[in-house]
Amino acid sequence: MKLSIVIIGDEILLGQVTDTNSGAVARTFRRMGWQVASIETVGDNGLQISAAVERGLEQSDLVITTGGLGPTKDDITKQVLMSIFGGELRRDAEVTANIERVFALRGIAMNVLTADQALVPTSCRVIQNRYGTAPIMWFERAGRVLVSMPGVPFETEGMLPEVSAAVAKRFTPDMFFRHHTLLVSGLSESKLAQQLSAYEASLPPSLHLAYLPQPGLIRLRLDGASADEAALEATFAAALESLRAEVRPLMVHDGDASVAEVLIELLRSRGYDVATAESCTGGNVAHAITMVAGCSDVYRGSVVAYSNEVKERVLGVSHDTLATDGAVSRATVEQMAAGVSRLTGSCCAIATSGIAGPGGATPGKPVGTVWIAAYCCGQVEARELHLPGDRSGVIGRATTEAILMLMRMLRR
Amino acid sequence: MKLSIVIIGDEILLGQVTDTNSGAVARTFRRMGWQVASIETVGDNGLQISAAVERGLEQSDLVITTGGLGPTKDDITKQVLMSIFGGELRRDAEVTANIERVFALRGIAMNVLTADQALVPTSCRVIQNRYGTAPIMWFERAGRVLVSMPGVPFETEGMLPEVSAAVAKRFTPDMFFRHHTLLVSGLSESKLAQQLSAYEASLPPSLHLAYLPQPGLIRLRLDGASADEAALEATFAAALESLRAEVRPLMVHDGDASVAEVLIELLRSRGYDVATAESCTGGNVAHAITMVAGCSDVYRGSVVAYSNEVKERVLGVSHDTLATDGAVSRATVEQMAAGVSRLTGSCCAIATSGIAGPGGATPGKPVGTVWIAAYCCGQVEARELHLPGDRSGVIGRATTEAILMLMRMLRR
Repeated sequence: MKLSIVIIGDEILLGQVTDTNSGAVARTFRRMGWQVASIETVGDNGLQISAAVERGLEQSDLVITTGGLGPTKDDITKQVLMSIFGGELRRDAEVTANIERVFALRGIAMNVLTADQALVPTSCRVIQNRYGTAPIMWFERAGRVLVSMPGVPFETEGMLPEVSAAVAKRFTPDMFFRHHTLLVSGLSESKLAQQLSAYEASLPPSLHLAYLPQPGLIRLRLDGASADEAALEATFAAALESLRAEVRPLMVHDGDASVAEVLIELLRSRGYDVATAESCTGGNVAHAITMVAGCSDVYRGSVVAYSNEVKERVLGVSHDTLATDGAVSRATVEQMAAGVSRLTGSCCAIATSGIAGPGGATPGKPVGTVWIAAYCCGQVEARELHLPGDRSGVIGRATTEAILMLMRMLRR
Repeated sequence: MKLSIVIIGDEILLGQVTDTNSGAVARTFRRMGWQVASIETVGDNGLQISAAVERGLEQSDLVITTGGLGPTKDDITKQVLMSIFGGELRRDAEVTANIERVFALRGIAMNVLTADQALVPTSCRVIQNRYGTAPIMWFERAGRVLVSMPGVPFETEGMLPEVSAAVAKRFTPDMFFRHHTLLVSGLSESKLAQQLSAYEASLPPSLHLAYLPQPGLIRLRLDGASADEAALEATFAAALESLRAEVRPLMVHDGDASVAEVLIELLRSRGYDVATAESCTGGNVAHAITMVAGCSDVYRGSVVAYSNEVKERVLGVSHDTLATDGAVSRATVEQMAAGVSRLTGSCCAIATSGIAGPGGATPGKPVGTVWIAAYCCGQVEARELHLPGDRSGVIGRATTEAILMLMRMLRR
C-alpha cells in the first residue's frame, strides 16, 4: 500500500519552521507495512495544494495532509479539499463541543474565528481532535482515502495512533516490510561499506542495506520487502544474523536507539548512576539523558560550569591547573568529572570542556578542540577531540562522543 | 525567480532522519528574493528522482537537490543526473585532491569507493566542496539550472553561501521580497487574529500577514512581494509600523530571534549575568542559552538538580521544604533559583521543577505541572504552569516560559 504525504505551510517553504510531521507520519505507517511514495511541501496556496493532492491521489492509496486548518485567513486547506471532494459546509455539534472543551482546559473563551473551525464539508467524516480544536477530516474518492490532519506537531503526533488504526481497518496490506537497525561506531562510512561489500552483494533482491551516518556514529539499516510474509521472515532473520556477525566489534547497540538510551540501559543493568560536568556542551549531555523517560533512576544531575570561576568554586578544579593548562585540557576535564561525582554522589561521570566556536580559539587550540572525560568508580580516562563543523555541530558531536566514551569504559 | 527543492534519501521517507536541508536552502534563497515553489522528498530511487527533477525543471528556474552523493551503492544521484543531462564520467583531479585533503584532516586513508567520488559527469561544472568529499555539481538545460548538493547538513549549510552567490551571478531577479517578524506572547492565535482582523483587511495585495505559533509564543510574519522595489519598500515600511503599534503591549521582540537570544541581549544591555537551576527541563534552558555564540559574557553556568538529594546538597534547598511541599512547589523552585545565584555568583537566575511525563504524576500534580522561578538581584517570582503535550513538549514549553518570565521581570 502506498502513501503520499502533503505538508502544507508557507512557513516551511520560507525555512522558518522545520517539518517534523512528515517523519512522524512516515514512521507510523511504515510500521504498519505501508510504503511512503512521496513527501511534498507546498505553500498556503490553493493551486499548489490541489496539484499536490491530485498527484498524491493518483500515485497512492492514501494521502495524508498536514497544516492549513487553523482559524486564520491563510488556513485554506478545508476550502481546497471541498473543491476537490465536493459537498458544502455544515456546522458539526460534536466539533463545537470539542472546541469548547479544549478552550475550557486552556482557560480561554471561544470566538467566532475558532467557532468556525466546527464548519466541515459534508463530503468528509470527522475524527475528533483530542489534542486541539481543528477537526481531522477523512475523505474518499474512487477507493482512495485522504486524511487532513493539523499542522501542530503535538496534535498530529497525538492523533496518529487513532488515524492509523482507522486506516488499518479500511485497507488490507498487500506488501510486508521488515527493518532493523544496528548502531556502529569506529569506521568511516566508506571504510564500512568496503568491509561490507561482499555481504551486500550476497543479499537477495528483497533485502537492502542502507547507511545513515551521524556525527560519531553510523546507523546500519537492513530493509526487507516482499508479498510473501513467511519467506521474508526467514530471509530477513538470516541476513540480520550475518550482518551482526560482520560488525560485532563495531556495534554500539543492536536496534535503533539514541546513545543516551543505550548508556542509561547499561548503567541500569550495572546498578550505576551518572552525573555530568559540562562546559562547551552547555547542558546538552544532560538534555540528551533527561529526554529519556525514566532516566531518574540512573541520573543524579549536572553542573554546567561555563566560567572558570564556576569550575573552581563548584567543581573544585584547581586554580593552578586552570592557570597553567587552561580550561580546555586533560587535567581540567578529569577534575571536572571527579568533582561532579563527589558533588552529586554519583559513581560515574561525564565531563566536557572545549571550544565550540565560532570565537574562542587560542594558539594551538582551534575551534573544535574538545577534551572529554569518562569517570567510573574512581577511574578516569580523557581524550582530546578535533571536531569539524559549526557551533551546533561541535556541541552535538562532542555530546555523542562523550556518551560513547563512558559507554565503552563501562563495557571494558 | 522560482526554486524547486528535491530532497533525496530513503531515510527521510522512513522517518528516521528529519530533513533540515530544505529549510536552510529555502531561507538562503528567500533572502535573495527567490520564491520556493515546491519541496519534494523522494527515495534513493532512479525513477522517483528523475520524475521530481523533471517536475522541478518544468516549474522553476532553479532546482536544488540534496543527498545521494555518498560513496555507497544506494547513492545514485550522480547517475540519474547524468541520464537527464547527458555526458559521461571523467575523473576530476581537483576533486581527487580535495578528497585527499579532507581525509588527511580526519586522519584516515582514501579507498577506492571514496576515490570514485571524484568521477563527475562531463555535462556539469564542479564547485569544490570545502566541507566534505562529494563535489557539488552544476548542470544547465534550456536556461534552467540544477545544483546537486550533499545530504550532510553541515556540508550543505557550509556551501550555501558560495552556491547562492554563483546563482545570483547567473540570474537577474525580477521580483522583490521583504519580510519582517515580530515575536509576541500573551494571546492565543485566534484572539490575536481577531484583534488584527481590521489591520489585515487594510493590507494591500502585495502584503500578507502570517501567524506562526510556537509553545508560549507567536511569530507574526509580515511578507511583501512586488516587481516595483521602491513602491514595496514604502508600503512595507508603513504597514510594519502600523503592525508594531497594534501589538506593542504583546511584543517580546522586534525581529526573528530565539527567546534565549533576546534574553542574552537584555542581560548584556543591563550588565547582568544569569545562571540556571533545572530539574524537569534537564539542562534544556542551559542548552538554549549556550547555543547562542558569545553567551559567555552573561552566562555563568547551571546546576541540573535531578534528584532531591542534589537539590539539597548542591543548591541548598531546605530538607523540610522538600519533605512538606515536595520538589514541584513554589518554595522549592524559589530556593533553587536563589541557591544557584549564590553558588555561581550570578545576579539573575532561572529555576524549573516539574513533571515532564509520561510517568511521575502524583495526586494533585498531573503530568505537565511545572513551577518556574525568575530571580534578579535578590527579588524572586514564581509561577505554576499546566502544560499540554508529551515529555518533549513539556520540556520545550517550560524552557520558553521560564526564559520569558525572567525577561518580563527584567523589563518591569
